Amino acid sequence: MSITAAQGFVAAGVAAGLKSTGARDVALVVNEGPERVAAGVFTSNRVVAAPVTWSRQVVSDGRVDAVILNSGGANAATGPAGFLDTHRTAEHVAAALAEHGREVSSGDVAVCSTGLIGVRLPMDRLLAGVDAAAAGLAADGGDHAAHAIMTTDTVPKQAVAQRAGWSVGGMAKGAGMLAPGLATMLCVITTDASVTVGRADAALRAATRRTFDRVDSDGCMSTNDTVLLLASGASGIVPAAGEFEEALTEVCAALARGLVADAEGASHEIAVTVTNATTEDAAEAVARAITRSNLFKAAIFGNDPNWGRIISAAGTVPESIAPYDATALDVTVNGIQVCRASGVGDDRDLVDLSGREVRIVLDLHAGGSSATVWTNDLTHDYVHENSAYSS
Amino acid sequence: MSITAAQGFVAAGVAAGLKSTGARDVALVVNEGPERVAAGVFTSNRVVAAPVTWSRQVVSDGRVDAVILNSGGANAATGPAGFLDTHRTAEHVAAALAEHGREVSSGDVAVCSTGLIGVRLPMDRLLAGVDAAAAGLAADGGDHAAHAIMTTDTVPKQAVAQRAGWSVGGMAKGAGMLAPGLATMLCVITTDASVTVGRADAALRAATRRTFDRVDSDGCMSTNDTVLLLASGASGIVPAAGEFEEALTEVCAALARGLVADAEGASHEIAVTVTNATTEDAAEAVARAITRSNLFKAAIFGNDPNWGRIISAAGTVPESIAPYDATALDVTVNGIQVCRASGVGDDRDLVDLSGREVRIVLDLHAGGSSATVWTNDLTHDYVHENSAYSS
Repeated sequence: MSITAAQGFVAAGVAAGLKSTGARDVALVVNEGPERVAAGVFTSNRVVAAPVTWSRQVVSDGRVDAVILNSGGANAATGPAGFLDTHRTAEHVAAALAEHGREVSSGDVAVCSTGLIGVRLPMDRLLAGVDAAAAGLAADGGDHAAHAIMTTDTVPKQAVAQRAGWSVGGMAKGAGMLAPGLATMLCVITTDASVTVGRADAALRAATRRTFDRVDSDGCMSTNDTVLLLASGASGIVPAAGEFEEALTEVCAALARGLVADAEGASHEIAVTVTNATTEDAAEAVARAITRSNLFKAAIFGNDPNWGRIISAAGTVPESIAPYDATALDVTVNGIQVCRASGVGDDRDLVDLSGREVRIVLDLHAGGSSATVWTNDLTHDYVHENSAYSS
Repeated sequence: MSITAAQGFVAAGVAAGLKSTGARDVALVVNEGPERVAAGVFTSNRVVAAPVTWSRQVVSDGRVDAVILNSGGANAATGPAGFLDTHRTAEHVAAALAEHGREVSSGDVAVCSTGLIGVRLPMDRLLAGVDAAAAGLAADGGDHAAHAIMTTDTVPKQAVAQRAGWSVGGMAKGAGMLAPGLATMLCVITTDASVTVGRADAALRAATRRTFDRVDSDGCMSTNDTVLLLASGASGIVPAAGEFEEALTEVCAALARGLVADAEGASHEIAVTVTNATTEDAAEAVARAITRSNLFKAAIFGNDPNWGRIISAAGTVPESIAPYDATALDVTVNGIQVCRASGVGDDRDLVDLSGREVRIVLDLHAGGSSATVWTNDLTHDYVHENSAYSS
């Protein structure tokens, strides 16, 4: 159900011929209210796709009535003409919804696109898809919508957090180019809780910072990353302090975990946890340096608990960012402490890396803060998919 | 000839049994003077191997009489015992040289090690190798020494710059873990020019900054990187202002280029040049962001001139570091301008990527500075070598 789990939302996912496979490729999500609160987080890349430029503006007043999403084309690096395509799409959504008795201003329609960079969208097909989606909106349309935003994803990513009388649900797509400042992804989250614009915005930023921002599959940051939160207030419930934030983070974490699990060509999902850092930022910086190390990631692919590459990657973080004693590092791989005081620890042959999930813990012995960043191993399939598939 | 091209130097490279293959694995270089000026540049990794800690101290007074290098073991992450091994090696070098009538203080013997991390060196074999090397020192021993420092290198890297009456020669090893703050590498450069300690140090720092520091094969930074410059003054010539610096940079550039050409598993050598940046640092930062993009590197492996991944990588550099207009970027791949004003340019099918060398030029249209960073493509062989080989 995902985005239609919460009351007050309808959705659709249709096949408009943007994907050569004939699979669903246009999704529409509409907030039926009574409230129409929204927040958004976007890629920190300076090179942004036209829909990001548009949607940033749409969400800036805290209101989004509908989101139109397409796979089969990112509408990135398409210049002013590409921006006009996005604008035209939003206007077409408003017109199509009006035909079905839903009054929506085009300025309240967010647009998300994903697929190839540098190619104009086939507007005739896309707009016909908008019409079909507007006609097919349903209270159980979440699953079709989640399928329609997939690109190289092998499975749709959906999550729901049910609470007493209200819920949060979300869908996401992304299977590579996952990096901080958002994984390469599109994500729409809905809730029927009643929240203010300020609360929605603060909660979304806090949740993404500890979930999507801590997924770093290949260190690459996309031009289209977008996470939108829409709140309908249809439950009539204002969650108590912390409750909404916790449910939202739960959904974001589940979706982020799903992105890692489906990353292109990966054979391991790796959680790198840095403990006893001076600050959470320091812990995150060190964890991220490790998740960015191709040598480390290739070692995990080879089922090699190569702790030398772990402490070597940690050592690249400047002391000004993460103070610690470089001779005092402990590394545990799947429960075996293979490195003690930056030297040889327990027998590395005891480490079992045959499973898909790998847990790395690096103890800095410098403070009391910790952070976890998720990544994948570097595999032949990753190289194959990204050398053979343009994106 | 490399390190023995300059007058005043003898060298040897012997097989001591550190490598399981029986290949040469211990090298010794001795400066016979009359001057014994030295400078050194070391890894900026905070996790450093014992020989780096030792050699930093040795070179700090501007004098190095001899350098002992071994492959077959990095002596990194070996704790206090590993440091004692390094100390003992230097003392053994001094004693062995004394037996051959060369008076050298152990405090003037630099030590370099390369190979596996986290493993103690087999000291009996290493010290026997030191004896053999001291006995075998020769004025034409440079080639043997260059072979003895190889690990996964397929060819030794040597370079010489001949000038009127003096010269600069060097040898280097490194074939992966090549990153800024030095490629993962050991390098010894010799000259018979007469230079002061201050000039040697300044020239070496300037040369490495524009050569070794701009080789970024896989973004990984090692624990053992060392570049040493030894000057004998044996030519009796003090080069004119700029001449020594230019010859030294020439040798460093040739060795750095050799490292890229021999990088593990690479099928393309890629020069990423960023032009018309506001500063050279800005140009370098943008070039480095591109050379760090796995998606870009995988695309080049697939002979795909994927300019979307190039501008997307450029967009990750903060505006505070590299100001430019993200909608005004031009990208040329092997002479074809595939991206114009951050949009589609000339036909990408015109780009020929069948050759080994690839030239990327990104024009920022923001200023008058430029920089080039070299990297390699991301290949199946890279993944294979680094998942199957511990280092």
